[in-house]
Amino acid sequence: MTAEVSAEVSLAVVGLGYWGPNLARNVVAIPGASLAWVCDDDAGALARAAASFPGVGATSSLDEVLADDGLDGVLLTTPVRTHAELAERVLSAGKHCFVEKPLATSVADAQGVVDAAAAGDRVLMVGHLLEYHPGVRALAALIADGELGEIHYIYSNRLNLGQLRADENALWSLGAHDVAVILSLAGEAPVELDARGECYMRAGIEDVVFAFMRFPSGLAAHLHLSWLDPHKERRITVVGSRRMATFDDMEIERKLTIYDKGFDERTDSWGEYIARSGASTSPRLQPTEPLRLEVEHFADCIRSGSAPRSDGASGLRVVRVLEGLQAELERSRR
Amino acid sequence: MTAEVSAEVSLAVVGLGYWGPNLARNVVAIPGASLAWVCDDDAGALARAAASFPGVGATSSLDEVLADDGLDGVLLTTPVRTHAELAERVLSAGKHCFVEKPLATSVADAQGVVDAAAAGDRVLMVGHLLEYHPGVRALAALIADGELGEIHYIYSNRLNLGQLRADENALWSLGAHDVAVILSLAGEAPVELDARGECYMRAGIEDVVFAFMRFPSGLAAHLHLSWLDPHKERRITVVGSRRMATFDDMEIERKLTIYDKGFDERTDSWGEYIARSGASTSPRLQPTEPLRLEVEHFADCIRSGSAPRSDGASGLRVVRVLEGLQAELERSRR
Amino acid sequence: MTAEVSAEVSLAVVGLGYWGPNLARNVVAIPGASLAWVCDDDAGALARAAASFPGVGATSSLDEVLADDGLDGVLLTTPVRTHAELAERVLSAGKHCFVEKPLATSVADAQGVVDAAAAGDRVLMVGHLLEYHPGVRALAALIADGELGEIHYIYSNRLNLGQLRADENALWSLGAHDVAVILSLAGEAPVELDARGECYMRAGIEDVVFAFMRFPSGLAAHLHLSWLDPHKERRITVVGSRRMATFDDMEIERKLTIYDKGFDERTDSWGEYIARSGASTSPRLQPTEPLRLEVEHFADCIRSGSAPRSDGASGLRVVRVLEGLQAELERSRR
Amino acid sequence: MTAEVSAEVSLAVVGLGYWGPNLARNVVAIPGASLAWVCDDDAGALARAAASFPGVGATSSLDEVLADDGLDGVLLTTPVRTHAELAERVLSAGKHCFVEKPLATSVADAQGVVDAAAAGDRVLMVGHLLEYHPGVRALAALIADGELGEIHYIYSNRLNLGQLRADENALWSLGAHDVAVILSLAGEAPVELDARGECYMRAGIEDVVFAFMRFPSGLAAHLHLSWLDPHKERRITVVGSRRMATFDDMEIERKLTIYDKGFDERTDSWGEYIARSGASTSPRLQPTEPLRLEVEHFADCIRSGSAPRSDGASGLRVVRVLEGLQAELERSRR
Repeated sequence: MTAEVSAEVSLAVVGLGYWGPNLARNVVAIPGASLAWVCDDDAGALARAAASFPGVGATSSLDEVLADDGLDGVLLTTPVRTHAELAERVLSAGKHCFVEKPLATSVADAQGVVDAAAAGDRVLMVGHLLEYHPGVRALAALIADGELGEIHYIYSNRLNLGQLRADENALWSLGAHDVAVILSLAGEAPVELDARGECYMRAGIEDVVFAFMRFPSGLAAHLHLSWLDPHKERRITVVGSRRMATFDDMEIERKLTIYDKGFDERTDSWGEYIARSGASTSPRLQPTEPLRLEVEHFADCIRSGSAPRSDGASGLRVVRVLEGLQAELERSRR
Repeated sequence: MTAEVSAEVSLAVVGLGYWGPNLARNVVAIPGASLAWVCDDDAGALARAAASFPGVGATSSLDEVLADDGLDGVLLTTPVRTHAELAERVLSAGKHCFVEKPLATSVADAQGVVDAAAAGDRVLMVGHLLEYHPGVRALAALIADGELGEIHYIYSNRLNLGQLRADENALWSLGAHDVAVILSLAGEAPVELDARGECYMRAGIEDVVFAFMRFPSGLAAHLHLSWLDPHKERRITVVGSRRMATFDDMEIERKLTIYDKGFDERTDSWGEYIARSGASTSPRLQPTEPLRLEVEHFADCIRSGSAPRSDGASGLRVVRVLEGLQAELERSRR
Repeated sequence: MTAEVSAEVSLAVVGLGYWGPNLARNVVAIPGASLAWVCDDDAGALARAAASFPGVGATSSLDEVLADDGLDGVLLTTPVRTHAELAERVLSAGKHCFVEKPLATSVADAQGVVDAAAAGDRVLMVGHLLEYHPGVRALAALIADGELGEIHYIYSNRLNLGQLRADENALWSLGAHDVAVILSLAGEAPVELDARGECYMRAGIEDVVFAFMRFPSGLAAHLHLSWLDPHKERRITVVGSRRMATFDDMEIERKLTIYDKGFDERTDSWGEYIARSGASTSPRLQPTEPLRLEVEHFADCIRSGSAPRSDGASGLRVVRVLEGLQAELERSRR
Repeated sequence: MTAEVSAEVSLAVVGLGYWGPNLARNVVAIPGASLAWVCDDDAGALARAAASFPGVGATSSLDEVLADDGLDGVLLTTPVRTHAELAERVLSAGKHCFVEKPLATSVADAQGVVDAAAAGDRVLMVGHLLEYHPGVRALAALIADGELGEIHYIYSNRLNLGQLRADENALWSLGAHDVAVILSLAGEAPVELDARGECYMRAGIEDVVFAFMRFPSGLAAHLHLSWLDPHKERRITVVGSRRMATFDDMEIERKLTIYDKGFDERTDSWGEYIARSGASTSPRLQPTEPLRLEVEHFADCIRSGSAPRSDGASGLRVVRVLEGLQAELERSRR
């Protein structure tokens, strides 16, 4: 991929619901990027964005955006069901494309987007925001350095009393984050999937999901996802053979903690183990907002022509696991 | 069952490992009961107990204990695999019997103990300790009174860095508590069971277990059990249609909390819901130790001839679910 | 005071450091008010604000702002040492005035501002933000309703690792919040003041302050203030004869908790007390941001001509206590 | 002091209220010591102890205890007002003496006990339990090694809803712990004392105490003590020029935490500081109970003839500070 773009990357944000304005604000804030367009077919959302970003082009027409020759890339934050079709239009128009997670609602659709990016030699990045969190990156570095030993299992708890969604269940809405992180930490694809869920508020939309994965290396992973819970938890725990670690996004200061805990084999007695409960440490993390780092990474990849950390292949892998878990949910419905 | 025993109930504690001395101490402490015997075939454990309970008979022979005509009942805290056989001997000797949880390692064995108790018209009580916790009893009362509305689901987290066991996996060792509580709260038997687990420290002994149950009423339940975890959690959460509640045994003061949380249907718009996040309340709980209440209950049942809250039928139901989940664990092993 | 202003209140924000833009954003957001001017003598801050609030007048001249006949009021968020002089200019120009806390750096200066407001019959409001927090308002209502019984004492902990200030010590910077709340809860002025502090980072600027007050009714209050602490605490605890309560601004959901705790006199034995540790309850609080409520209150008071909850007299009382405590700090310096 | 005692130290526990039986249990449990006597003039307490410790002499007469030629030492846990007189009797009888904290109710009395120990060349140890806590010892080691830099200040929070005492106020009852720890960490005596308190439940007995100390080195210390509080806190925080640390006895696992926090002077700009909020670490602590370590230390000192960590001089220093703070409390009473 050649880095033909100028130093200043010109970007558009398409989709101005809850999340789009946050992306737009970060595009404005980072050096080396400029916001050229905001786009939405909802007139009210467009007007509010236009007021917030004076001097930026505002339109309800994606075609008008894509016709801008000076534009380098588009950040798509439209409803999930539109991701694939719109991303393909963006990429086919020769623009680099950032797509909010999940990349698509099916493997087939996700593959189409990946193919379109490859065909046009464009950057395709998926908004797996947690992968850009300094705490998750520090956790990934610990694992890569062998600090936790062999990774036995990973489990996540993503619980709150949240917004009910009519078009996505808790697996796709909440679990996409965890699947993306777990796959990136695992570095391999699961070979066994299991999921159970319950639909209390709307027929066919799971409010609560328990999902399980097994990987070839022996690693296992479990997700507990719910938007119908009294607790607010956003936590990923990694249990390794040497140490354990937790990334807890609800903590103000100790978002990442490493526990020197585990079982040690007794040297004097074969097969006996002693629990070791040693020091716990919370390292200093880079204080930058993950969203800022994510948007900077997209601009950097456009400039350098390098593949994003959460590239199309990564987005496809996540959709493949979500689709597999969804099939398990449907298979096991009452 | 006739209450033929005298006012002072004479009891023996059989099995003096970790838990037996605690039971013995409580027998000594409660009014209306006396400790007549301590029994174990380990000479050291027996000597320590004899020193702690001067004046109490100490023997390694269960036959000697059962030959005591003045003895009313026996509390069994021997290894789980011995529960059924020893309990049948106790009951056949005409003594009332308390058995530590779980009642047995199979449904067949548990049924045998239940039959023996029925044949001899003796009290059979299983040590489902959590059912005697004032916080769990208050939670049960809330549910029975409809304060939480219809119960959607219950999930438990029982995690720690604990003692590795060679003869029991995390399901039987940790999960017996949760299954007992969930069945007592549900008031019905599950119709669907699923479980996955992983054995990291010893072949064939799950250190980590995820279990799922569905009930005829629509209730679902999930257990996350592990003795290989950096966190120490002992928590049961109940999500109802009107309110939610958590029993958290790691809290010092707020062991039970009721959350006025849920989704309310909008009156003006069919099918739209609004999240309601209202007051949270932690009621005052009876400060008595659960173990004390449990031992008192056993003595009371002997005196009155009434069935214990956690009677043999309850113990059998718990073993039936554990056996079913164990089958799922084994079916789904790698 | 006559409510001569039109329905739409026209406001200016003067001082565009850290806090000013937040005020401006809220002026823009509330119905019934409009932002007419932003003003600062720092060119960079002014340019940033002008970009954020397109269509709003931007000037470095307070005179230009005050010359606007259509302007109803000014919100002053300039450095504390300038509060009194600028507020007097605003009020003398016939504009209503909101001043960030504390109102002034001396009782004499604060009195001058109060007099200027009275002379011109203008609204003078001091930005005691915490008094507008729904949690503090609910706490005040509990006390007023007698729910806590007689108030024995109040203590606050306001600790963090914060910004070192060169022009204000921890008493004036952090303690102004607590003094304002405590005086409003007490409804009386203290008769005894004591304070000790230590200056570690800069000579003559206390980083850590302990302050004590006694009130005529018997109430006592204590402040622990520090910007040199490993913990982040923002908490006010009220101990009453019947119940106790804590407003903890670091809690996400349970910002206000009422504890049914205290000592009960035994009826059977004169002078003996039994500790009562009953239920704890966290009521639902209005979810609106305190800053939004504060700005709305200023606009409402301008419209209605009524006195603000934190009016000039209140601001003067707070400065009087701060000045008294400052004298104690200086008297007791090493 | 010569170590004339045999390898097995023979000990008596005098005073069998709440705390005495705990001491007795630990005497029994440690190797190299034996419990020869339990003594109390309350017949019920004596009978209960006699039952708990079969084979141990039980008497209401201290003279009988002291007449035992084989007895090496006495642990006194009688009411505080009796400490000095009884300790002098013990020491004058040639026995080594452990006295619960505080050593006495006045400096004069404490000096008398110290003199008696010196005259008889006996071990005198005061039960400053916290000084034997592995977390406090680790904290002291950190300070001694310079890990925290220069110590700026220390503050303690010792709050609960506790037992009202008729014979001791919160300063003597709760604060003795903190004063002992602070003096041992400081290694110097305070030159300035200030204290304020309030008596709500009983005239002349402070339920709530705020105390302040300044030391020659520049160190300051503050205590917040109360048995009339909704919170349960037992915490000592140390703020140093390089790092900060907290010993929090309410934490289950992280009792000691070191925070890499502070202000760093900017190298490019004289007098400007930047907040540094780095890693936090909770080291592994020795898991032994402090009470066990304390009793072992007394037995070791008897055997070796060495001075205890909390010797008579230490007990005297603590009483001197408590007496000084008490004078401030009384001076400043309403």
